[in-house]
Amino acid sequence: MIKPRTPPGVMELLPPDQIAFQRMLDKIRRNFERFGFLPVETPVMELSEVLLTKSGGETERQVYFVQSTGALEKAAQGGEAIPELALRFDLTVPLARYVAEHEHDLAFPFRRYQMQRVYRGERAQRGRFREFYQCDIDVIGKDALSVRFDAEMPAVIHAVFSELAIGKFTIQLNNRKLMRGFFEAQGVTDGELQARVLREVDKLDKRGPDYVRETLTGDGFGLSVEAVDSILEFVEVRSTSHADALARLDALGDGNDSLRAGVSELREVLELIRAMGVPESDVALNFSIARGLDYYTGTVYETTLDDYPQIGSICSGGRYDDLASQYSKSKLPGVGISIGLTRLFWQLREAGLVDTAASTVQVLVTQMEADSLPHCLAVANELRQAGLNTEVVMEASKLARQFRYADRAGIRFVVVLGGDEIAKGTATVKDLRRADQFEVASADLGRVLAAALAQSEVQA
Amino acid sequence: MIKPRTPPGVMELLPPDQIAFQRMLDKIRRNFERFGFLPVETPVMELSEVLLTKSGGETERQVYFVQSTGALEKAAQGGEAIPELALRFDLTVPLARYVAEHEHDLAFPFRRYQMQRVYRGERAQRGRFREFYQCDIDVIGKDALSVRFDAEMPAVIHAVFSELAIGKFTIQLNNRKLMRGFFEAQGVTDGELQARVLREVDKLDKRGPDYVRETLTGDGFGLSVEAVDSILEFVEVRSTSHADALARLDALGDGNDSLRAGVSELREVLELIRAMGVPESDVALNFSIARGLDYYTGTVYETTLDDYPQIGSICSGGRYDDLASQYSKSKLPGVGISIGLTRLFWQLREAGLVDTAASTVQVLVTQMEADSLPHCLAVANELRQAGLNTEVVMEASKLARQFRYADRAGIRFVVVLGGDEIAKGTATVKDLRRADQFEVASADLGRVLAAALAQSEVQA
Repeated sequence: MIKPRTPPGVMELLPPDQIAFQRMLDKIRRNFERFGFLPVETPVMELSEVLLTKSGGETERQVYFVQSTGALEKAAQGGEAIPELALRFDLTVPLARYVAEHEHDLAFPFRRYQMQRVYRGERAQRGRFREFYQCDIDVIGKDALSVRFDAEMPAVIHAVFSELAIGKFTIQLNNRKLMRGFFEAQGVTDGELQARVLREVDKLDKRGPDYVRETLTGDGFGLSVEAVDSILEFVEVRSTSHADALARLDALGDGNDSLRAGVSELREVLELIRAMGVPESDVALNFSIARGLDYYTGTVYETTLDDYPQIGSICSGGRYDDLASQYSKSKLPGVGISIGLTRLFWQLREAGLVDTAASTVQVLVTQMEADSLPHCLAVANELRQAGLNTEVVMEASKLARQFRYADRAGIRFVVVLGGDEIAKGTATVKDLRRADQFEVASADLGRVLAAALAQSEVQA
Repeated sequence: MIKPRTPPGVMELLPPDQIAFQRMLDKIRRNFERFGFLPVETPVMELSEVLLTKSGGETERQVYFVQSTGALEKAAQGGEAIPELALRFDLTVPLARYVAEHEHDLAFPFRRYQMQRVYRGERAQRGRFREFYQCDIDVIGKDALSVRFDAEMPAVIHAVFSELAIGKFTIQLNNRKLMRGFFEAQGVTDGELQARVLREVDKLDKRGPDYVRETLTGDGFGLSVEAVDSILEFVEVRSTSHADALARLDALGDGNDSLRAGVSELREVLELIRAMGVPESDVALNFSIARGLDYYTGTVYETTLDDYPQIGSICSGGRYDDLASQYSKSKLPGVGISIGLTRLFWQLREAGLVDTAASTVQVLVTQMEADSLPHCLAVANELRQAGLNTEVVMEASKLARQFRYADRAGIRFVVVLGGDEIAKGTATVKDLRRADQFEVASADLGRVLAAALAQSEVQA
């Protein structure tokens, strides 16, 4: 007998949690589609040679490699060369490969969403997963992509997290050009040094300002105290309203080309976000956001839950200059965001914010006597045709036990078809959510229950 | 520059096909849920020791093994032992592991659906995939599971394939007990010999009756000509109606215990399938269906498209005695079916039966002049709130070009907001499907288009 167990670092859910997780996936997908993004799925395995062109040492150390026994044996016998395979570690490299491979079959700007699992051989620890869902959208241009697309991302983030209803959130914006311009004005002109300074600034939340101040004025960086003070003041900027955000941009002054470009982009993005109906209280400038320094080149995004700052960013992304330089001569600029849903779900559950009350099953048709099953099945058939998810108790048992089952499983309606009801052509319905009971003609049952469910959805 | 390409043996789709594929997945899922099945997802990787307890040589040769570089290096340095990982090759073994692992947290009969990709290192050839979706449902009992549940499977198959609308199909039924009883009556009493005979009978379609007759009367089997004739007559049985099916069962006579048990089960299953509203023209007995000889013990199912018999079974399954004997002392009998959707989709596409006409995007809001974008975005926002999947042209270009884009992309409604319309507070809508054009007040736009789409869905 083998002990049944999953490998470490994966999240496997019991049905109530799986239903809650699936509902989150559905809501995210619905909103991605509502903004005109098209679905893409890619294989979990990519050719290693194709997947690992850009990645450095640390990423490659986390990659899972894949090989079939049969293929290994065959190669040992001198058969065909085996393409070495690896599991995708994000959805960005597969997107780059996809767009470059299918470039001539796609319409640009290409708007795609992708919601699949990715794999990283991370150290196993609580809340860290080796297999996790990413839910990504990107818009990819050919040769150029207007900054106007950068304004769509916060609108999608707003729609998604409003519908997920996990509390008040703030979409935080910054711009890498603005950052670069500002740092140049502080005398940090060298690109490599800028990147290192930004990396230190990125530690502000974790290590505190004293640590960062000491590091940046120390031997490795040698910045002046004035420059560091100015930088630390800069990265503390958070806007509190649309007008405040514009004022914060004004306050940066005329600066250099890069600063001006960043300010102008952020200004346009802020105006269009507003035109898309995103409430200004949900959007803020945050000049400390750096993110993927080697990758992002313009707008960058993070999203935090106001009441759960310790969860960190629940949706991040940004603008990049060229998606697929390793695969294509075409210049493919883009902008995108990503939700790490497995980690988010785990954190929400830890915080008690996951609602697992309701089953996908909406109606349980109980059974009083064995010979009533054909009638129960016929009624269930009508309920399903009315669009209700319906389970039938296939073997008669005590009615109390059937009710207990429905209650525990989170099934809202229990239909009782006893001898009386069958004779009269009715059904008795118990609404477990409202602790309510009523009798209804069998012919009306589907319509009545569907209407009751639709009404609850509207109220919710 | 690396050539962007996928590994051999995977199916990657362009958005129009991906949309069609996703719609099939959605319909399958909706019907699984309608019958009260609960969602389960398992990790793609399982511990090899856990995954490969039961499988024989051929399965193991097709398994993909997984290892991370970091873990390998660590082990070489004498670190913690690495659990060897493998990719799932079906959804049945993970289900067995899941049910055994979570036995005390599940309610039985446990009804689960699972729709995920599985991996097999098969020889690469046209229409054979190394990564493919399986869409499975199973009902698992504890200690016992009534044969009544066997009747639910054809009802689900009927609901799924009616909604997929890929042509007339027939759900074919047989019963392993009936088969065993019949073979025993022909003097084929030894279990091992029965399995071998059944394996030869399974070749009927491919090799023809003469080949099978010759083999079974030959040295390896030594059956009498009469027994073989009787077997070949038996496996030709196909019922043409409910009454005919019952008559075919009557015609088998009283026989032995096993035959009687099989006949009685099929009789009950046929009656309940009827009570569930499945048309009798969609169901047939087929005494040639054997399937998974080591695994199935009662009812077995296959489903074929009447007009495309060459596609073979598009949904198969059956009843088994014990799901998880390798993981649990509990007896867990069950019944289930599986749809191999990747292969089915590929075959339907080859046969020209996949409809890729319509995009997930329902409305394109065009842009006449750059400064009208905020107005366009506000209109799009209202359309989305009315539930319409809406894309906005973010950069003004020639209107004809924007129309061409919508047409090629399969977007049905194009909204034009020119200076005139904006001044009047209206929008001009072109319905590309009906080649129809109308002007509507902006405030009514969402309601009007949502109603038009809802009406088309009802008609479809």
